[in-house]
Amino acid sequence: MQDACRTRAVLDIVGDKWALLVVRVLKDGPLRFTELKRAIDGISQRMLTVTLRDLERDGILTRTVREVMPPHVSYELTSMGRTLREAAAPLLEWSIAHLPEIDAARAAYDDRP
Amino acid sequence: MQDACRTRAVLDIVGDKWALLVVRVLKDGPLRFTELKRAIDGISQRMLTVTLRDLERDGILTRTVREVMPPHVSYELTSMGRTLREAAAPLLEWSIAHLPEIDAARAAYDDRP
Repeated sequence: MQDACRTRAVLDIVGDKWALLVVRVLKDGPLRFTELKRAIDGISQRMLTVTLRDLERDGILTRTVREVMPPHVSYELTSMGRTLREAAAPLLEWSIAHLPEIDAARAAYDDRP
Repeated sequence: MQDACRTRAVLDIVGDKWALLVVRVLKDGPLRFTELKRAIDGISQRMLTVTLRDLERDGILTRTVREVMPPHVSYELTSMGRTLREAAAPLLEWSIAHLPEIDAARAAYDDRP
């Protein structure tokens, strides 16, 4: 279970739903903070800030400050980040495809005597 | 971004690192609670209990009580759980493969002036 232990360290980041959703919405190219916030329903300003910093630290995305007026900051997947996006895609697709089945399972579970 | 919102509801469960690790260690067949606890390094009794209950409620695994002496309880992936295991495998493999690269990125980030 050595692998499981090592995997766990990485899953602290990539097994985080917000991280997976950030990587997902960056698939078509760089976005600004406000665009990311709008694209990820329900994420707080604070959680998005923390998630972006963790992903930058892990080498998953880059943060670029443009010295225009007003200055703005954009976020873009690195080449490693793009491979993560590909690896996470089946899990995200699975989630969308199985939502009705999971909802039904939850309802059945909650209806147990 | 309707999809993102729906996905998020499922990722509350499957985007949880402990849930992914439980699904992973159940790939070869049913396990008892104590076997799961041993196989997943660092998980607490409480966290394993909660994770198993959530996964059972979501229809990802079944819980079977065997009326032997002493009675014991085992956990096994459902057919939906097996498809989740397959969908999560690329992300888990990615995590293992990229751990050194992520460690290096973290060290470089932390060394910034």
